[in-house]
Amino acid sequence: MEADSEAKGKVSDQAMQNPQALAALQDKLDSLSHNVSIMDSLPKPVRRRVNALRNLQVNSTHIEARFYKEVHELERMYSALYQPLFDKRRKVVSGEVEPTDEECEWQSDPEDEAALAVRIVCPLALKLDLMLSEEWLCNSQGELPCLQEELKKKAAIEEKTEDANEENPKGVPEFWLTIFRSVDMLSDMLQDHDEPILKHLQDIKVTFSGPDQPMSFTLEFHFEANEYFTNSVLTKVYKMKSEPDSDDPFSFEGPEIIDCEGCEIDWHKGKDVTVKTIKKKQKHKGRGTARVITKQVPNDSFFNFFNPIKVSPDKELDEDSEYTLATDFEIGHFFRERIVPRAVLYFTGEALEDDESFEEEELEEGEEEDQDDEEEDDEEEGDSK
Amino acid sequence: MEADSEAKGKVSDQAMQNPQALAALQDKLDSLSHNVSIMDSLPKPVRRRVNALRNLQVNSTHIEARFYKEVHELERMYSALYQPLFDKRRKVVSGEVEPTDEECEWQSDPEDEAALAVRIVCPLALKLDLMLSEEWLCNSQGELPCLQEELKKKAAIEEKTEDANEENPKGVPEFWLTIFRSVDMLSDMLQDHDEPILKHLQDIKVTFSGPDQPMSFTLEFHFEANEYFTNSVLTKVYKMKSEPDSDDPFSFEGPEIIDCEGCEIDWHKGKDVTVKTIKKKQKHKGRGTARVITKQVPNDSFFNFFNPIKVSPDKELDEDSEYTLATDFEIGHFFRERIVPRAVLYFTGEALEDDESFEEEELEEGEEEDQDDEEEDDEEEGDSK
Repeated sequence: MEADSEAKGKVSDQAMQNPQALAALQDKLDSLSHNVSIMDSLPKPVRRRVNALRNLQVNSTHIEARFYKEVHELERMYSALYQPLFDKRRKVVSGEVEPTDEECEWQSDPEDEAALAVRIVCPLALKLDLMLSEEWLCNSQGELPCLQEELKKKAAIEEKTEDANEENPKGVPEFWLTIFRSVDMLSDMLQDHDEPILKHLQDIKVTFSGPDQPMSFTLEFHFEANEYFTNSVLTKVYKMKSEPDSDDPFSFEGPEIIDCEGCEIDWHKGKDVTVKTIKKKQKHKGRGTARVITKQVPNDSFFNFFNPIKVSPDKELDEDSEYTLATDFEIGHFFRERIVPRAVLYFTGEALEDDESFEEEELEEGEEEDQDDEEEDDEEEGDSK
Repeated sequence: MEADSEAKGKVSDQAMQNPQALAALQDKLDSLSHNVSIMDSLPKPVRRRVNALRNLQVNSTHIEARFYKEVHELERMYSALYQPLFDKRRKVVSGEVEPTDEECEWQSDPEDEAALAVRIVCPLALKLDLMLSEEWLCNSQGELPCLQEELKKKAAIEEKTEDANEENPKGVPEFWLTIFRSVDMLSDMLQDHDEPILKHLQDIKVTFSGPDQPMSFTLEFHFEANEYFTNSVLTKVYKMKSEPDSDDPFSFEGPEIIDCEGCEIDWHKGKDVTVKTIKKKQKHKGRGTARVITKQVPNDSFFNFFNPIKVSPDKELDEDSEYTLATDFEIGHFFRERIVPRAVLYFTGEALEDDESFEEEELEEGEEEDQDDEEEDDEEEGDSK
């Protein structure tokens, strides 16, 4: 990934100020000298043979690349198996479908922590025996044994009495927005002005490129009709590569994201949160008179996610841009691997603990935190119009 | 994996002394209270729907389990594709096959660090254009363009002249032993008395269980005839599980090693390095006379790898045993994922830098380093017989 080469580039730049970078450099030298010394200490005929083994190893990386392409194909096929579950999720979240009582009973013994949450929420459900949920979708009329049936009725009655006093909003309000707020990697991008827009986010889908296309996946953000933009779907395509670099074949570790592409957002007039209008006083040099001009400048927003930095083979990215892009790739990967497949667990918080190490590891690669808000210090901010 | 539950168990034990453990505990509580509070803050009808989503999520974990089974099957199929390369490696290592000059030319532009090593070894090879090595095995007579052909001849002549003055051992001596010495995870197990035995190690293979068998993989250590034991192959089977736990379905992250099985080593008399004979003075209580008895006690050795701790569903393992077993599983995984597929890169050291983070991450789970050598403090050591 870009982040890797960036991290390596940084080592040499920062080595003199940064003891950690210095240590990393030392490690590199150690490993290099190990490398040189092992090869160096070998009689020439043996070195010849080891180089033959290294050539064999290059062949291995090409087989590995094919393997990962097949895994990608398998993921594409499996996405069709998950889709009915995700569709059902979308319908429950939007309120289009009201799950049956049976569908709402927790059917698996939850882990200790989750157990507590569930115990608080619905103490009766825990007394019901474990029912494996493989057939949940097809057989929502499955029969329960007698005792369970009775407990179930009792629970249903209790629930009804209480329900009367409680509000009943449509579906699961702010489902995706809550996830954006809970997951650090996403909340870092989230601005106050993004929240009312993300309340209209109804689903996030992942689609995969076909077997004959270059490897890629697409994140689709599905919105209900809203007053901010006309698009019903915002997309972000992540292009991948599953080929060893010819100049560094042994670094190959499977597919990596190499580029991404956003989409145009058709904002309603004055609703574009990715820009803000600022007022600026301008003095006329000759006459000494002043006038106020307005100017549109970039504004922090999650929706900048759909307007990523362009990678171009001609020009090198600067460090900031490389870091921004690497972070973008991590976020895309995270949406695909975790958020979309396990959204409800991020909503309840059950997935957050497990991911702490995951996120830390992913984010370690760069150091800066902010780099976008440096421009308009002495400028007067106005509302976007 | 066992290591996980162990790590979790430790948190509570050590929380009071250890600030890190305390912080981890706090994180857990935070995540728990997030969990409780989100669910708690929801109106009951919404909570019902979220539980329906959680049940859908359990179904997802079962689809995921099937996916990982297919990936395992794919790995099994691909192992047949790698095998010819590994067979060739074995033949070059043992000296059974002498690679041609062409096979020994480095055919890919190496990464910066490796480049240096190769530059020292064979400066001319680098001047030759990149030749992709897909057809290396089949087409060792492939024709090179004119300039390259000339350079090649020149290199061959230089090499020959130097060769005459150098020793030429068979194959690549101590190929696997060098890897054992270089990789921390393996050198930790390696004892001086293991080294002469491992000089006879000629190959390590990984085989996978068939599609209708329970998921497992086997490490096969192939030895040439030697004076230590009669086995030509020592095996270690790792049994895996790719099913979500019914009592904690959301922790499922793919296949995990759940058990392993070694093999009996038929040691020649007095050659078993996994035991040592100690002499002990015994006093007769009544008569006051003393006699010397000999006793066999366990001895540190890599070969204990083939006699792992037995997992039994009836009795809980103590912390030390859990740690030992978790380490064993990590080593098995490491052999399968890294050492066997990339042996030559561990031999040259090229893979060592890349793996630093990998190893640290894997080994973080327990803290103790030594726990086996506590027994015979005041006992006199003798040689094993």
